[in-house]
Amino acid sequence: MRMYDLIYTKKMGGKLTPEQIAFWVEGAARGTVPDEQSAALLMAICWRGMDVEETLALTLGMRDSGDRVDLSSVPGVKVDKHSTGGVGDKTTLILGPIVAACGVPCAMFSGRGLGHTGGTVDKYMAVPGLKVELSVEDFRKSLLETGFANSAQTGDITPADRKLYALRDVTATVESIPLITASIMSKKLAGGSDALVLDVKCGAGAFMKTLDDARTLAQSMVAVGRAHGMNIKALITRMAEPLGRAIGNSLEVMESVEILKGLHGDSDLAKESFRLAAEMLILGGAAPTLAEAEQRVAQAVASGKAMDTYRAWVAFNGGDARALDDFSLLPQAAHTQDILAEEGGYIHAIDSRCLGILAMEMGGGRASKDDVLDLGVGLTIHRNVGDRVERGEAILTQHHNGKLGNPLPKGWIDIRPEPCPKAPWLLETI
Amino acid sequence: MRMYDLIYTKKMGGKLTPEQIAFWVEGAARGTVPDEQSAALLMAICWRGMDVEETLALTLGMRDSGDRVDLSSVPGVKVDKHSTGGVGDKTTLILGPIVAACGVPCAMFSGRGLGHTGGTVDKYMAVPGLKVELSVEDFRKSLLETGFANSAQTGDITPADRKLYALRDVTATVESIPLITASIMSKKLAGGSDALVLDVKCGAGAFMKTLDDARTLAQSMVAVGRAHGMNIKALITRMAEPLGRAIGNSLEVMESVEILKGLHGDSDLAKESFRLAAEMLILGGAAPTLAEAEQRVAQAVASGKAMDTYRAWVAFNGGDARALDDFSLLPQAAHTQDILAEEGGYIHAIDSRCLGILAMEMGGGRASKDDVLDLGVGLTIHRNVGDRVERGEAILTQHHNGKLGNPLPKGWIDIRPEPCPKAPWLLETI
Repeated sequence: MRMYDLIYTKKMGGKLTPEQIAFWVEGAARGTVPDEQSAALLMAICWRGMDVEETLALTLGMRDSGDRVDLSSVPGVKVDKHSTGGVGDKTTLILGPIVAACGVPCAMFSGRGLGHTGGTVDKYMAVPGLKVELSVEDFRKSLLETGFANSAQTGDITPADRKLYALRDVTATVESIPLITASIMSKKLAGGSDALVLDVKCGAGAFMKTLDDARTLAQSMVAVGRAHGMNIKALITRMAEPLGRAIGNSLEVMESVEILKGLHGDSDLAKESFRLAAEMLILGGAAPTLAEAEQRVAQAVASGKAMDTYRAWVAFNGGDARALDDFSLLPQAAHTQDILAEEGGYIHAIDSRCLGILAMEMGGGRASKDDVLDLGVGLTIHRNVGDRVERGEAILTQHHNGKLGNPLPKGWIDIRPEPCPKAPWLLETI
Repeated sequence: MRMYDLIYTKKMGGKLTPEQIAFWVEGAARGTVPDEQSAALLMAICWRGMDVEETLALTLGMRDSGDRVDLSSVPGVKVDKHSTGGVGDKTTLILGPIVAACGVPCAMFSGRGLGHTGGTVDKYMAVPGLKVELSVEDFRKSLLETGFANSAQTGDITPADRKLYALRDVTATVESIPLITASIMSKKLAGGSDALVLDVKCGAGAFMKTLDDARTLAQSMVAVGRAHGMNIKALITRMAEPLGRAIGNSLEVMESVEILKGLHGDSDLAKESFRLAAEMLILGGAAPTLAEAEQRVAQAVASGKAMDTYRAWVAFNGGDARALDDFSLLPQAAHTQDILAEEGGYIHAIDSRCLGILAMEMGGGRASKDDVLDLGVGLTIHRNVGDRVERGEAILTQHHNGKLGNPLPKGWIDIRPEPCPKAPWLLETI
């Protein structure tokens, strides 16, 4: 087999065989396929695309390039969730305890943040003592004992994806539906869960800016999952303004607790988290219909069972569970400063990307991989899209330790005299 | 400037600036731009194309990456010719002496053969003693003294093209109109001539299979030449069956002499060579119209002046000019073997690629760069497209030294009962 033939075939719009794709992925990971040939093929894939069969072969090739987590010793349908990333998105912290409380084993491997979006692992690091890098054995134990496991990726997962992603990063080939699909799905399949709910973010603050793009990605991931026999569902959700009232690691843990204690139940954050949890219950076989699943979710929250599971999970993994009830035990920034409305009116848009970057500049996120986080800093959002605000009123509070970041760029917020109709948080299900 | 931005711009269908292209070409030649980024950009160019301005910038960047030949000390308009390559194409050997005999300095740098097509330099090597690798100084001298100069490329010409071509070769990005254009035109511009006639071959035996493709390439090269202020013209000529009656280095020298001595004047080979020469005379300012130019060409051949120039040029460059009149002084194969017609009828097609490969397998061409040539071997074509042939009659003679090559594949020739209308050798001028 020659790489030249693969590149030529794809360049001419042809289809690669599973054997050819396996040859490429293995060679790329081992270094026997030179980077220039992989780069040319990656660009040809951006150009010509890949069908479901090709994308599945790429996914499986990357999955098989490294360690795989075996969760077969844990009884039940193990359910995972993946979000394509947004600002203020702490749904994982909320739905994990709920799903577990409803008896469905919730097994999630999460990432760290980079750039304007945060990462679940970083948020958990705000809880004193909580272990965020578990061995496979400890991951299994947490799942068995508390019904919930969440960890940074463990072992040498999908090294071929890591290698190809680094190449895509310097060759402007990140943006390609089949390549994004295989990158995400290979990690999810290596994670060992049986079912998966995808939260595909769509809008100005997300990687997918238009509904068309988000739908194409969601359909691609669902098709690949199904072709592999996985139980999978995707929600396309709006990511324009930030999700919820907090951006920043410690602040987001606090907000997750508030939601699980029944506060802000009418917010988009609560609605989205509860819906994702309900979809996971359905995939996990714990509820036959969405209505029943949503009822079980509501009960888990109202009864306090979800919070109990949250506390038990934190304690089991070495964390100080008291911090979930006494926020003074969580990292807190020393100072606050408000950002005020320069005019009165209704908020029609907030650019979540600007706020994500601001939180990063304050120390709450990473500009580059090796940056050290200040877990206590971040933003509280007092007025969000749809709200009325008066001139001089605080829209945001910066919780900072001396670093205030750059001033927000003109146009980060759109305030108009007329009321703003509420936009739906859920755009489509696939 | 970052390579990433260039790749991204081209991937999205945008236009690169001359500065960006210069940055890339220089970096690729120096090794400061990694191969994987060049490979991704090359594939993006295959995808999105380049306009004339971009292609000119690429051409000039490659021209400026190495040595350039300065012919300004030679008076007159120096004229060059370039062919995209065909089987049996020895027009250069014929038109060079004609153009020089008509008083237009004819300065050509030629290549060596690879695969199924031959190279002018290899053909000249058949003439005992003839120097085919001249220094720039000797090239200039030959041009001044004999009106004609032809050599393998001298010095370190267009190293950036060499580097990028090697990369294109392994990444399936050779086939791209702007990349082919820049590769050819950069070498032609570095060669120092003022005017250029292009012979773009079209058909089954050529790189460009369809008239559309050939036209696009011809238009692209003419546009780039004109944008640079060069006097340039392109002919699109048919390359299906071999051009002329000989394939093989020594045999092709003999055929060039026969044409210059006035034999086979009605053949496509003679017509094409004379027409190319006439176009060169027009560009060189030696004739105002095609009719006058063609008359001058005919006179140069009929008067024997073209042959005299051929002899003088061979002698000036160290060759044994007697070999042009006594073919026994040229390398000759020891044995002959005929290939006979298996059926009678009219020849409708001969696949020149098959014959080029056969001549290569007999030792007359190179399968890989370092192969040593057997200059005496080759094929004589007794019956070509349009001719009638009887069953058992010789179509070809193999002139060999023991290596007969593989049998010709089924379908190398198409013989039918009905006569074959003559197809024109000239398809279009641009």
